Amino acid sequence: MDKNAMKKMAAERSVDYVEDNMILGLGTGSTVVYMVEALAKRVKAENLHLTCVCTSIRTAEQATSLGIPVKALNEVDHIDLTIDGADEVDDNFQGIKGGGAAHLFEKLVATTSTRNIWIVDEEKVVDTIGRFPLPVEVIPFGSQQVFNKFVKEGLNPEFRTTEDGQRVLTDSKNEVIDLHLEKITHPHLLATWLSEQVGVVEHGLFLDLVNEVVVGSPEGVKILKAR
Amino acid sequence: MDKNAMKKMAAERSVDYVEDNMILGLGTGSTVVYMVEALAKRVKAENLHLTCVCTSIRTAEQATSLGIPVKALNEVDHIDLTIDGADEVDDNFQGIKGGGAAHLFEKLVATTSTRNIWIVDEEKVVDTIGRFPLPVEVIPFGSQQVFNKFVKEGLNPEFRTTEDGQRVLTDSKNEVIDLHLEKITHPHLLATWLSEQVGVVEHGLFLDLVNEVVVGSPEGVKILKAR
Repeated sequence: MDKNAMKKMAAERSVDYVEDNMILGLGTGSTVVYMVEALAKRVKAENLHLTCVCTSIRTAEQATSLGIPVKALNEVDHIDLTIDGADEVDDNFQGIKGGGAAHLFEKLVATTSTRNIWIVDEEKVVDTIGRFPLPVEVIPFGSQQVFNKFVKEGLNPEFRTTEDGQRVLTDSKNEVIDLHLEKITHPHLLATWLSEQVGVVEHGLFLDLVNEVVVGSPEGVKILKAR
Repeated sequence: MDKNAMKKMAAERSVDYVEDNMILGLGTGSTVVYMVEALAKRVKAENLHLTCVCTSIRTAEQATSLGIPVKALNEVDHIDLTIDGADEVDDNFQGIKGGGAAHLFEKLVATTSTRNIWIVDEEKVVDTIGRFPLPVEVIPFGSQQVFNKFVKEGLNPEFRTTEDGQRVLTDSKNEVIDLHLEKITHPHLLATWLSEQVGVVEHGLFLDLVNEVVVGSPEGVKILKAR
């Protein structure tokens, strides 16, 4: 089955979780694009009153263009529910995000949100996270020193670049270093170590954050519920 | 004795630590301004060959205007010695920095530096750090949520603003929240907690970093050496 069809299936199911008058967090990425489309249809059809907080400039542009009202994270006092994609999620509901370089804003919204739902195709569900390179957002001033420290720690770092070799910049104008780890066996230890490194703004480990994962698969939609 | 005279005394003594061919880190602040002036005199008088890495745009501008050659932190493979000010330093050589909102770049340079020397007037030497408000640099997107979390944790936060009420922005275009704590009795615990908060870029606790403190006082210069 086509991967996009699985993404779309998960995305469309996830908007069933949305209720009238919610403050809703909207993630970023190719699966979220389908979700925002489906959400816009429900908003129109049912005349829903929502306030949406977006995790990237591109999601905000899509939502606004479809008539979904958008507020800044600083303007809301809470978020009821956030729907976002993920690059990997394992049996323990630990995940990696940041393939789209939006994981800082995504994590700020996720940690403000009462509930978090991730929408993925079944290829994102893994036994152990780490095959997907772990994104780390770093301050450009001194990013080479941070990179060197990652090399010394054996974390196999690589600066993320565009096709023409320029450093990718996040919405906050920071750089991204991807860690090629293959398997992350101690995610909490790694998360703590990364958080304490000077120059690291945020890493892509999303631990103990997601409540339900909506998975698109050839057998239909599966719902995985965290404890 | 005038505080500026004490600052100048410490600043002028500190350049004695500089040796020819060093890669030198230059801090930020009113005491550092005196140090850069004294350094420029030594460079000219003795024709020293230095490479300097600056912790702020304003220090880089001063150094360049005085003919001191400046490189970016990303362009050097190490730093031999960094001379910087501090807002408070205690008996255990733990300090608070960031009164000038430059503590992120200062900490990046300090952690890259083999040795760190702080230059202060004697009023900065305290029994317990914390009377000076602890600066925390935060991402503007979601800074209100971070502020709310600090309130819940009893950390007495206050956004730093300019005289006309605008939020102060750092050289990285982030905001600063000052924590009014009076006494920080467990600096390492606080540092770890702050580092792990999403949206916190860097806090102003400089722990286990300084090697010697050069103190200007009415009785002359005192040198305090950390173990």
